[in-house]
This record gives sequence, C-alpha cells and structure tokens, in this order.
Amino acid sequence: MRRIMRAVVMHEPGNVTVEEMLMPIILEPTDAIIKLAATCICGSDLWSYRGSEPVHEQRMGHEYVGTVVEVGEAVTTVEPGDFVVGSFCISCGECATCRSGYPSRCTTAATQGDAFVGMRAGGTQAEYARIALADGTLVKTPAPPTPEQLPSLLAASDVLGTGWFAADEAGAAPGKTVVVVGDGAVGLGAIIGAKQLGASRIIAMSRHADRQALARQFGATDIVEERGEEGIARIKELTDGLGADGVVEAVGNEASFDQALGCVRPGGHLSFVGVPHGVSLDMGRMFGAEVHMFGGPAAVRKYLPTMIDLIYRGEINPGAVFDLVLPLEQAAEGYAAMDERRATKVMLTV
Amino acid sequence: MRRIMRAVVMHEPGNVTVEEMLMPIILEPTDAIIKLAATCICGSDLWSYRGSEPVHEQRMGHEYVGTVVEVGEAVTTVEPGDFVVGSFCISCGECATCRSGYPSRCTTAATQGDAFVGMRAGGTQAEYARIALADGTLVKTPAPPTPEQLPSLLAASDVLGTGWFAADEAGAAPGKTVVVVGDGAVGLGAIIGAKQLGASRIIAMSRHADRQALARQFGATDIVEERGEEGIARIKELTDGLGADGVVEAVGNEASFDQALGCVRPGGHLSFVGVPHGVSLDMGRMFGAEVHMFGGPAAVRKYLPTMIDLIYRGEINPGAVFDLVLPLEQAAEGYAAMDERRATKVMLTV
Repeated sequence: MRRIMRAVVMHEPGNVTVEEMLMPIILEPTDAIIKLAATCICGSDLWSYRGSEPVHEQRMGHEYVGTVVEVGEAVTTVEPGDFVVGSFCISCGECATCRSGYPSRCTTAATQGDAFVGMRAGGTQAEYARIALADGTLVKTPAPPTPEQLPSLLAASDVLGTGWFAADEAGAAPGKTVVVVGDGAVGLGAIIGAKQLGASRIIAMSRHADRQALARQFGATDIVEERGEEGIARIKELTDGLGADGVVEAVGNEASFDQALGCVRPGGHLSFVGVPHGVSLDMGRMFGAEVHMFGGPAAVRKYLPTMIDLIYRGEINPGAVFDLVLPLEQAAEGYAAMDERRATKVMLTV
Repeated sequence: MRRIMRAVVMHEPGNVTVEEMLMPIILEPTDAIIKLAATCICGSDLWSYRGSEPVHEQRMGHEYVGTVVEVGEAVTTVEPGDFVVGSFCISCGECATCRSGYPSRCTTAATQGDAFVGMRAGGTQAEYARIALADGTLVKTPAPPTPEQLPSLLAASDVLGTGWFAADEAGAAPGKTVVVVGDGAVGLGAIIGAKQLGASRIIAMSRHADRQALARQFGATDIVEERGEEGIARIKELTDGLGADGVVEAVGNEASFDQALGCVRPGGHLSFVGVPHGVSLDMGRMFGAEVHMFGGPAAVRKYLPTMIDLIYRGEINPGAVFDLVLPLEQAAEGYAAMDERRATKVMLTV
C-alpha cells in the first residue's frame, strides 16, 4: 500500500493549499526518491498564481534540497542517507547535449519524458519527490548542511544557478563590465556568479534599498537606480559611452528587454533568463544593435559542484535572498507574500 | 578645379545610370583616395532598386578593390601605387570596439560620421572613391593582382568577408557541423569561411544546381534541397536528431529565419548576416529554442589579411561567385540581371 505525504497543490489561480498525496515511488531504475529538507516558491510559479498561465489542480515546486531515501537499481553515485542538491532540469550527464554544456536540454531526459522536475511525479513543494536520472541530476554535498548552509544550497538549486548561468552566458570574466537588469533573486544570483567569474565591474540596476544592499554584499560595484532610456544613458556614462560587455536580463517583460538591449555594447552579450512573456524583437533592430543574444532554461547542474564548494567554504551566501521562511504547511501565505511583493523569495521548510 | 569622373546613380527604384560626378577629394588627414579596379552590385542594393527601401538620386556601391592615388598627411600604412582591399565598414583599428573584434562598429568612424563607405563621399560604383581612416580600413595586397585574383579580392571585400564572419560567429570549428541557409554569394562565402575555420561538416541548403556545384567546390560536404519543416527534418536526420552546432542565415526573411532557427541544436549558434526585413521573433520561442543568436554588419576587416593571403596562395577562389562581369558603364544591365535573377553576383570592371 502506497504511503501518504503532504504536498502543495494549486487548484486554480490564487488558490493554493497543502493536501495529502500518494508518496512518489521509483518508476525507472535511474530514479531516486528524496525527502525534502527545504523547497521554495519561484517567481515563475506566480505566472499561474496570477492567472497569466493556465493552471488546474497542479502539483507545484521545482527547487529542492534533501536526503536520498531510496534509489533505483541503476543508480551508482548517490545512496540513501546522502544529502543532495539538484536542478529543476533533469540531466543524464552523458548525452551529447549534456556534454556540450547544456544539461538543461538533456536528450535522454527529453526522450524519457522527464525533462523537468515535476513532470511525472509531482513537484518539490512536498515532503518527498522523485528525481529522475539521479546520477546525472543530483550532486551530493560534502556533509549534511548546517542551518546556515541550508538556504544557500536551496538557492543554488535554482536562483543562484540560473543567475550564474546568465552571468556566464553574458561573458562575465576578468576585465569585463556586466550589468544586471532585475534585482529579484535571480538577478542577485547573477551578481554572485559575475563576481565569481571574475567580472571587473558589476552594475546592478535596482531601485529598492534592501535589494541594493544585498547586491552590494554579493559583489555589485555600482548601483544604477534609473530605468529605461535614463538607465541606458547612465550605463553608457559608466562605460565610456560604449555600453557594457555583458548584460543579464532577469525580468522578462518588454520594458526590461528594451533596457537590457540598450545597455549592451556592439559585439557584447545579452543573456535572458527571466521567461519572456509577450516580448517580441524586430530582427532588423537586433542587426543594428549587433549584440549576441541567448536565453533559455538554465544549465544549473553544470555549476552545482562549484557552487556547493563555495557555500561549504563560506565564500558565498546566496541564501540571503530568502527574506521569508515558512513551514510547508503555510505555503499559501508564502504565495500571497510573493504575489503582494511582501517577500522577494520564500523558503519553505519541510 | 575639381576633376570629373563617372559614377553610378540610382535616381529612383529601378532607374540606374552612370553619370559625371566630381571626383572625391581628401577631407580628413586620415583619408585615402583610390582608383577603383573593380566593384560590384550587392544583394542589399536590390532593396532600394525594388522600392523596398526609399531611394532618391543616390550614389551606389560599397565593395571595392583598387589602387591608392592620394593619401592624407596622417596616413602611414598605404601610399600612392599600392593595391588595396577594404571593407564597407570604416574602422580605425585602434578603438576599444575595433580591438574587441568588431571593427564594423568602430567608435572613431561613428564619431567622425564615416561609419560606412559611401556616407560622405559617394559609393564605390565609380572610378574613384574616398576611403576614410585608410590606415585601419585598407589592407595592401602583396602585389598587384592577376586578372584571376582580382574577382576573389573583390569578393573578400564583402561577400566572402561577410560569410566568413557569419561562419565564425556560428562557431565553425573542428568537430562542428555548420548549416548554411541561403545559397547566394554571402552563403557561398560562408561555406569557404566554415571550411577554413575547420568545420567538420558543412551542409548547404540549396536547390539550384549551379550553386550546389559551387557550394561543393567551396567545401560543402552535404546538400539539402528541402526547405521549411522538411528541410529542418532533413538536417535533424543528418545530425543525430539534435540539429547543427551552428547555422548561418544568409537570406533575411521570415521563412529563412524560421528554417535557420529550426536547424540549430539547443545551445548552438545562429548567425544572421542577411539584413532582416520584416522579421520579428518571439522571445518566448527563443527561450524555448535555447540557441545563441547574433547578427549585424560584418567585421570583414578582421579577416582581410587571412583572406588575401589565401587568395594569393591560390587556396581559395571566392571570385567564382561572380557569374556576370560588365564594365561600369553597363551598371544598369547589371542591376537588371540581378533583379531578374539572371545573375547571382555582378562584378563591374572600372
């Protein structure tokens, strides 16, 4: 008889409760079952919460850290008792696409119908979750985390990893100037990533005092409060009139794209990791701008070993993005707080 | 008293004649005046010829090879008598943008109002032309060209250089598969570039027998005749179901963009060098495709020394793209031939 657990369900926009659900089970020999230690609410969960994307009786959550409780017979790199972090993108680590640096587009996972966490066995806003292709997806931590390390590992699972990926794709490196458009959790993660990748100058575009402080703490060298054309003009002033070498777009709407595009120097790089909603770009304009552009689901898995290492060495503290921590049972309050902008990022303890 | 020369003028769409004009003179100490040996008609000239872009009494031409006849007092690298090749983009070679690999966006040239050939001193479909920032723009050939080398040097000035740039930005390199969408002169140039950059497999999408033959001669390893969804399916078949590492889009319309985008593997590179007309891309779709995208005026100058060297060593023969050669006086017939697709690329001898 299958056992029962608690898990978050979004019944319809704005209506989130915690319900009893069947516990996940091993479906493939490459699966692992983890007991969640913590999970969180993503900015992307708000699209359906706000009715901008269709939703009906949906299991939620794709960010996770926890302890392995069971593995399929083909799993070799993790075992029950291991504390693990994984990405929302399932990856085998061995196919041509994984090896080319894009585990977020793993061919094996796509073929198996398990490309993203939550597709076949529910989300991670739950007590337990099934993680497919465990060997390629999960990374074991050096030790069980302290309470201080736990939020940072959870951030690595998505927002830090996504921001880091964006900074990398924007060409963050020594001698380079990187602008981050968007001061949400992913934008803040991009600042940490840009700093670790050695960017010489990191300009955060932010007008919220608390996020500016976090941006500075994470490595931003400059803050620009202006937006739109004024913001672009300010970035040009700071970059010899040229624009930045790399720009991270971490919002996803038309205004933020315009702003980001205007801040890149000719030949520079623009990466976008906020899922774009209703943004269309004229290619003639892109031809005129002559900037490299790239976006998509972040290859978080690629950066996990480095991020975990830095967290355990105490060199980065991405967990500081969580400004509200609630038990899983209070998920509804977490959604409301993020929706009403009372919180930047909510951690749910399990 | 200024001397008189002959030059091509487009009076209005479809109406091209050769007229008497004042010869260009040195305007800046960094200028050179060249006597054209040959010039050509560009696919982009057809936009105005066909009335898709406004045109009124316009001097035409931006591709050129010829002999220096006069230099400004600040010019040090070329002198009267030198045979030279240059790009349609004026570049100083010294500003931060030139040094970053994008001489096509030279800051000095833009500041001076001389970013593109033809802006202040007429086009190169003429007996003489003024070339600004001569030291950074012109490259002296090792010797005056033979009649066989002349068309290839002219191709290097734009179509080969543009195609090469596109192949480079598409990531052409050993082990990589590159698809070229568009079998015009730039697409054919991209095949030469991809081969020289070491691409392991070069797939030309072409349905014209004569251009297929040229594509093979230039280095294409495969030809795909299908277009649209069928073409994409064929490329997937040839690439283990993944798509190509790099795709060059050398047409510039909506259908060619769709085809190009569908042929790139996740994480791969799409470069576009055909000036896009009426093409708009949804960024949500780009997020889903997860491909690097880049386009703009080609940094031809960067590749000129290498291209010239290969032409003089007889290793490449890009001049084969010219399938109609006419004297400058017959420019009108050249425009008509390209407009009616009786010619792929027309060379005008001066």
